[in-house]
Amino acid sequence: MDDLQKELVGRLEWLGEFGKDPAGGVSRLLYSKEWAQAQHALKGWIEEEGLEAGFDEIGNLFGTLKGKNTDETVLTGSHVDTVKNGGLYDGAYGVVAGILALKYLKQKYGQPLRNIEVVSMAEEEGSRFPYAFWGSKNIVGIARREDVENITDFDGIPFVEAMKESGFNFKDESKAPRNDLKAFVELHVEQGSVLETEKIPVAVVNNIVGQRRFTVEVNGEANHAGTTPMGYRKDALYAASQMVFEMITMAREAGDPLVTTVGKIEAQPNIVNVVPGKAIFTIDVRHTEKEALVSFTEKITARMNEISKEHGVETTIDMWMDADPVPMDTTVVELIENQFKENGLNFKVMHSGAGHDSQIFAPFVPTAMLFVPSHKGISHNPAEYTKPSDLAEGVKGLIGALYELGYK
Amino acid sequence: MDDLQKELVGRLEWLGEFGKDPAGGVSRLLYSKEWAQAQHALKGWIEEEGLEAGFDEIGNLFGTLKGKNTDETVLTGSHVDTVKNGGLYDGAYGVVAGILALKYLKQKYGQPLRNIEVVSMAEEEGSRFPYAFWGSKNIVGIARREDVENITDFDGIPFVEAMKESGFNFKDESKAPRNDLKAFVELHVEQGSVLETEKIPVAVVNNIVGQRRFTVEVNGEANHAGTTPMGYRKDALYAASQMVFEMITMAREAGDPLVTTVGKIEAQPNIVNVVPGKAIFTIDVRHTEKEALVSFTEKITARMNEISKEHGVETTIDMWMDADPVPMDTTVVELIENQFKENGLNFKVMHSGAGHDSQIFAPFVPTAMLFVPSHKGISHNPAEYTKPSDLAEGVKGLIGALYELGYK
Repeated sequence: MDDLQKELVGRLEWLGEFGKDPAGGVSRLLYSKEWAQAQHALKGWIEEEGLEAGFDEIGNLFGTLKGKNTDETVLTGSHVDTVKNGGLYDGAYGVVAGILALKYLKQKYGQPLRNIEVVSMAEEEGSRFPYAFWGSKNIVGIARREDVENITDFDGIPFVEAMKESGFNFKDESKAPRNDLKAFVELHVEQGSVLETEKIPVAVVNNIVGQRRFTVEVNGEANHAGTTPMGYRKDALYAASQMVFEMITMAREAGDPLVTTVGKIEAQPNIVNVVPGKAIFTIDVRHTEKEALVSFTEKITARMNEISKEHGVETTIDMWMDADPVPMDTTVVELIENQFKENGLNFKVMHSGAGHDSQIFAPFVPTAMLFVPSHKGISHNPAEYTKPSDLAEGVKGLIGALYELGYK
Repeated sequence: MDDLQKELVGRLEWLGEFGKDPAGGVSRLLYSKEWAQAQHALKGWIEEEGLEAGFDEIGNLFGTLKGKNTDETVLTGSHVDTVKNGGLYDGAYGVVAGILALKYLKQKYGQPLRNIEVVSMAEEEGSRFPYAFWGSKNIVGIARREDVENITDFDGIPFVEAMKESGFNFKDESKAPRNDLKAFVELHVEQGSVLETEKIPVAVVNNIVGQRRFTVEVNGEANHAGTTPMGYRKDALYAASQMVFEMITMAREAGDPLVTTVGKIEAQPNIVNVVPGKAIFTIDVRHTEKEALVSFTEKITARMNEISKEHGVETTIDMWMDADPVPMDTTVVELIENQFKENGLNFKVMHSGAGHDSQIFAPFVPTAMLFVPSHKGISHNPAEYTKPSDLAEGVKGLIGALYELGYK
């Protein structure tokens, strides 16, 4: 393991101590004690590296390598919060890598043309409060007080109270959002297993999928499992099983990049000897192209309604999430691609199937992401892992991208 | 409503007061206060009708119309316990009808040839303790102390303590089981909707289905719903949905009297954006012929294993119930059929899709059942209902059967 790898792994383990969970992995939730300790420790490290460090009002931490032209900033970073019992890498890797990239760039190249900043964003996961992307939404100026003023966590602690107790507060609404950001590059673990399977250590991300999520409720008739002849039944689970089987088969036939998942299912009354009168399940569909996402969801909706009729049951289909794909900035993506080719990196261009802060930045700032492999695609789990050589390849890629964007 | 109907409905409502549940319906569980009150109240009623009444050791209540030949007994009756929040009819109807039948026979025909007895059996449902048919199994002599000595109810109250507190105890093992029973006829509500749909007010039951119950566990791989391409997945719920859909389709194609139900299902981790790594579901299969039951369950087992292989998942299929069909006694059934034909009753012969005390008696005593319609097949529910004219038709059928068996 070379020095960069050692430093990366060391810092990830160091950061992972903040919120280390006796039940396993890391639980570092927004505005918790561990979260505040992590942010302050990161601030200390940034300052040790001779960079300027500071928080915004809500708790995003910034580290700056000042450029000749201080009106323009190239930003990198990710989120410092985790899910409950998460791993060492999701979000944390982008923060640690950003600080190391700035350190390296300063050492090797001195002052950049424009500011290069790393951000450790306060929150992305929505793992403590029913609100996600609090960090990035505040930076680009689309976070709204009213969306968090009345929310609490699972223990009933209000968001606002937790925020203030960590020493932070709402953004100063009199100040306009920053307008100096020229690019945002986020380095993150893939959370899928394509890169590991294809043995590629780093990727440039050109698109973040759109997704639609549904809850489907099938209403039939609960009945005695022994005394109700098959022809008399309105078996909600029988109908639902046909819907689930057919839609996932259709998704497989449609081919990449379409994905469709039925993650949750429930039968009622859920008793071995009662024909289910009700079946409820969720659908999660994702695609890089909005048209394809819409047309596929229309197709499965139509088929579910047909199946419902054939079974003599009643079905309601409720779409409660409808997020458009967010393409990354073609210029930034190409710039990074060319840089990687020039440097002979083994890489590919791919889409992200997961949501990231980058999707919040992209409409406001030219944005791109870099991925490194995730072992077996494991994420949101203490077993999350990326090998040190891949971690280092990602940092090198980031350094190259920031150099292109910040020094030229 | 005629007198018989009025008396039936009145007595069912009277009995339904014992264990009337504020949360709805009737909850009259074995050895509870309400249960004991009901049994003692029934004893009082039996004695008011000029019949001999008495308990056995465990709490079954008997009412006897003594015959010329006291060595032979024709028995009728059912169980006095209910499920939680049950209705007025399940079990209670057979008890009340039996007492009214004996009253009527005594009034109209005087002393029978052999004893005619009604039994209000202590327990059949298994709704308080994890043991069913405690009443009937004790009568025929197959209940075993060791099966109940260490069991408790959901509140941790031991079976033995509850039994003794109601003033009852284990059977005297030195006494042989009774050997005077020449026939058992149980009148019960259908708990299905065939009779109501076909507009037939009473049926003779010639068979109680066999049933096999399984728990199937499908093990795939939990994965991120966004970043895992379809071709990389081992989606346990996708495989399970194909299994459920195909097996119920096969059951429908096999035709009556086969029934197959998937009542319970669960996905793990059961999260909208995680590909299910595990799916668990139950199967309940019933048929009147053992060969057909075995061959169908072998067929669906084989198909589930094929599907499992095709999906690249691992499946375990655990059969945890395997009850053979219990045919009723052909002589008794025919006797009742002929009696019904002679009396011009509108009736049919059918099987029972549900389990009953009769299945416990049948291997020891020539047994048959009579059914009356259940409105919309509703059972184990406060909405359970049989209209008074059908209730009365059932009693008339029972009186006819007991007359044939007890006076000739």
